[in-house]
Amino acid sequence: METIIAVVGGTGAEGSGLAARFAKAGVQVRIGSRNLEKAQEAARRIGSQTTGHTNADAVAGAGIVVITVPLSAQVETLKSIRGSIAPGAILVDATVPLEIAIGGRVSRMLTLWDGSAAQQAARLLPGAAVVAAFHALSAEALAKLDHPLDCDALICGDSAEAKAAVVQLAELIPGVRAIDAGPLDNARLLESAAALLISLNLRHKVKESGMRITGLKSGGHL
Amino acid sequence: METIIAVVGGTGAEGSGLAARFAKAGVQVRIGSRNLEKAQEAARRIGSQTTGHTNADAVAGAGIVVITVPLSAQVETLKSIRGSIAPGAILVDATVPLEIAIGGRVSRMLTLWDGSAAQQAARLLPGAAVVAAFHALSAEALAKLDHPLDCDALICGDSAEAKAAVVQLAELIPGVRAIDAGPLDNARLLESAAALLISLNLRHKVKESGMRITGLKSGGHL
Repeated sequence: METIIAVVGGTGAEGSGLAARFAKAGVQVRIGSRNLEKAQEAARRIGSQTTGHTNADAVAGAGIVVITVPLSAQVETLKSIRGSIAPGAILVDATVPLEIAIGGRVSRMLTLWDGSAAQQAARLLPGAAVVAAFHALSAEALAKLDHPLDCDALICGDSAEAKAAVVQLAELIPGVRAIDAGPLDNARLLESAAALLISLNLRHKVKESGMRITGLKSGGHL
Repeated sequence: METIIAVVGGTGAEGSGLAARFAKAGVQVRIGSRNLEKAQEAARRIGSQTTGHTNADAVAGAGIVVITVPLSAQVETLKSIRGSIAPGAILVDATVPLEIAIGGRVSRMLTLWDGSAAQQAARLLPGAAVVAAFHALSAEALAKLDHPLDCDALICGDSAEAKAAVVQLAELIPGVRAIDAGPLDNARLLESAAALLISLNLRHKVKESGMRITGLKSGGHL
């Protein structure tokens, strides 16, 4: 994949895991963070030409921007990149609206005015093609670079072209099958599925639960 | 399993499929319907000692009552069995609060005041041990009696004893692994996961999509 990928919130576990997987597949990855030094440090750990930047700098010129931040940081982060994201860039939102954002439980969800975190992102970045994806990929599993994942990546969005690019990105990760889950309106179902896995992780004392969809014909693309 | 199972709404596709699977496993099953003749006809199709009853008669003396009705019929159905359900009976609610109940889309959900259809059931039947389960088992797959299913049955509820009974019931269906998904408070996550599968069925033009959870240690029980 030739496109530059910016992972905003890339110093966190989920962002670092995704960034490391993309970098391993030969993609040029930029780690974005509010804190430049932390971003550079995370990029050094990943290696493979990965570079660290402030969020605004990371997204400038990137074809795909993956945002992996807690809900409590999503709005502020989107505002911080609004001025520098390239026209036509794809924004992949992986935010899960968990109640922990207001001090509640990690396995319960908040109802957002827009319906989902991804739709909230679309409202805040009206120019971008927003795709909801990567909510349910275990950070712990992503970090084990030598092991394939055992899960599907459910992907939804309103631009077929943008979804196709994210399908391609997702399937750079060994073991991951990308599944087209429809329009962005379905994002709340994907965010809820991620909350279900978080709940199962807690209950079953594991960290790498995942989800496979059975019964689809020949892969999950359309 | 010695317990009598009543399947209320047992003339519908989901209820008939579950009833047929339980009957095939040797369980004594009663089909309940608003319409006695339809219930008796559905029971005859299933055979294996299955009997047809009005909903109120079906649940009298049953140890486990499985309710498989559309959201638009759930409240009325629960009220119709409230007077005859045995004290201490387990109520398994499989209702998915889909928008189609108000003329909307089958793949979108309604937000219920109680948080989930199962919690609504618990409010309406304060004496019963309510367990949320069976939302995501494909009716079409259930109907193919000679084929094992390829999916997990996620089960939640506040009574460990009731959940254990439903785990046992679920695993009478070949191919199904039952997974403890926590307290009844989590039911909205299971209902949402079912809506996700319905959405995938529509989008991918299949009827038997299912869900497998990966990454759990040794089965899904606790």
